[in-house]
Amino acid sequence: MQMRFYTLTDYPTGLPDRALFKLESQTLPELAEGEVRIRNSWLSVDPYMRGRMSGIHTYVAPFELGKPMEGAAIGEVIESNDARLNVGDKVSHMGGWRDIAQLPAQEVTPLPDIDVPEQAYLGVLGMPGMTAWTGLNLIAECRPGDNVLVSAASGAVGSMVVQLAKAKGCHVVGIAGAAHKLAWLESLSVEPVSYRDRNSHELSDAIRLASPNGIDVYYENVGGICLEAALSQLNEGARIAVCGMINDYNAEEPTPGPSNLAQLIMRKAKMQGFIVADYWEHYPEFLKEVAPQVSAGKIDYKETVKEGLENTPEAFLTLFEGGNTGKMLVKLDS
Amino acid sequence: MQMRFYTLTDYPTGLPDRALFKLESQTLPELAEGEVRIRNSWLSVDPYMRGRMSGIHTYVAPFELGKPMEGAAIGEVIESNDARLNVGDKVSHMGGWRDIAQLPAQEVTPLPDIDVPEQAYLGVLGMPGMTAWTGLNLIAECRPGDNVLVSAASGAVGSMVVQLAKAKGCHVVGIAGAAHKLAWLESLSVEPVSYRDRNSHELSDAIRLASPNGIDVYYENVGGICLEAALSQLNEGARIAVCGMINDYNAEEPTPGPSNLAQLIMRKAKMQGFIVADYWEHYPEFLKEVAPQVSAGKIDYKETVKEGLENTPEAFLTLFEGGNTGKMLVKLDS
Repeated sequence: MQMRFYTLTDYPTGLPDRALFKLESQTLPELAEGEVRIRNSWLSVDPYMRGRMSGIHTYVAPFELGKPMEGAAIGEVIESNDARLNVGDKVSHMGGWRDIAQLPAQEVTPLPDIDVPEQAYLGVLGMPGMTAWTGLNLIAECRPGDNVLVSAASGAVGSMVVQLAKAKGCHVVGIAGAAHKLAWLESLSVEPVSYRDRNSHELSDAIRLASPNGIDVYYENVGGICLEAALSQLNEGARIAVCGMINDYNAEEPTPGPSNLAQLIMRKAKMQGFIVADYWEHYPEFLKEVAPQVSAGKIDYKETVKEGLENTPEAFLTLFEGGNTGKMLVKLDS
Repeated sequence: MQMRFYTLTDYPTGLPDRALFKLESQTLPELAEGEVRIRNSWLSVDPYMRGRMSGIHTYVAPFELGKPMEGAAIGEVIESNDARLNVGDKVSHMGGWRDIAQLPAQEVTPLPDIDVPEQAYLGVLGMPGMTAWTGLNLIAECRPGDNVLVSAASGAVGSMVVQLAKAKGCHVVGIAGAAHKLAWLESLSVEPVSYRDRNSHELSDAIRLASPNGIDVYYENVGGICLEAALSQLNEGARIAVCGMINDYNAEEPTPGPSNLAQLIMRKAKMQGFIVADYWEHYPEFLKEVAPQVSAGKIDYKETVKEGLENTPEAFLTLFEGGNTGKMLVKLDS
């Protein structure tokens, strides 16, 4: 059986060039003992993957040049050489960026029996949702009544953060760019703030208007002027969960940090980076809390979908152009 | 009785001009019920006072223009209208920047009965020592064996941090400028690193050489390239206690922050600002632990002393020129 997959031909500087992604094909070997073969139906592309596109080991190993790229994916078992999985099982795994995945069964997780579309396990009930929940609750220690600010608030992670914070009874301000994203935030009873055509002072003023009682929790996905503006509005004892700094991921030159970090002292504030993988033991707790809300339609989640394996690089690159609302996905022919 | 005292005539921009400090004199009123009169012997000048020299309320109220300035001081009670204090008692209080202080007795603390020079209560056993202990233990959660980096390591706070960390069994690297400061650090078995004539990359390299196993705890007093270099060397789970950013206090333009704050994510690190006043309930614990070490001569502390009330502004301004080793003090005639 043929597997089609993407490889990276070189490590990019700055925004990756489309030509660095190469679609290849190979004949899969016979299934070994303990392995399963999966036909992927949905692939995930995520900002963190940019970090794997360099020769430097950060918190995940880099993609190996010329080898199949990896990422979260959903699919159906089409052949099994392991007692734990049967043909027809719907599963999630990390063998993305390809149409057929052949993996050891222990690296494959059956989808829970919850009435949600399967691709939800790449978004609201997957890594992005879990990232939102972890940062908000375990890192920023968000409490009911907090004033919460979220950057990239209409993204896969950000849109979950704002809704989880609203459900907790917080006053929530979301930063985004495009008008339809701001409108979506407003429809979620989130105070929308645009960063477009604003410097950090103007953004600070807009945040102050949207959250006159200051900011207790800042969920950081962006960096840059968003961080500087957020720091200027912190309340005493504020907590900043640093999930991402997408603003900097493709920077070719070092981009200066905020000029007002001393606000951490003035406001006795905490700023903490985290990687969701370290908190995965809490996934059942997350699922128990959030899955019923998703299943009952109480969480409004958007998806931006590209069709076909050959559009996976475009889907990935769209993430850095503000081109997605909610979770960016690739849908494969089944 | 006459009191001589300093007032601030205007709020400075950048490094305060000497002419903004005005020595004035007034006749003190009769002692009211519950008040004491104190002849000051030692005055403290501290970097945090720069924060009070602006019209903006930060974590302490600004100095009021034309009113006596304030700061920590040690003196002897010369007249008492309160049963709690007697003439001859040695006390600490906040009526500094003046020769005679007249205060409500409840704002005055008798010195503990420990065999140390009285000015130690402005330094190693006072606010700077308590700041060092709090940041290291309560904020950075320093553990034996940690690799600890300290900026402004020969200052009043920094020099206590390095010694407390050494006493805990840590590997300690101290950043300073002048050769005699680096030599002093070396005499304390601290790895000295100079920031002079180095950019942040060069400083990073020097820190890596001095601490090949990375940095678990960074005690931040400076900001600027020290912070950028420190961020580049963090170990996973590192903790940064942000005590001060003296680099920025006199900046007239916003100074850009570190370009590598995303290291907080990569290293899953925490960065937390604090104000020692919030932790003052731990002062007895600090005193119990540290006072015997000071009394037994196990803590090496240096003082830089200016003589005479009229040199208080110079003593203060010296703090921003790297002119002090250890605690900066003003000694008054007794």
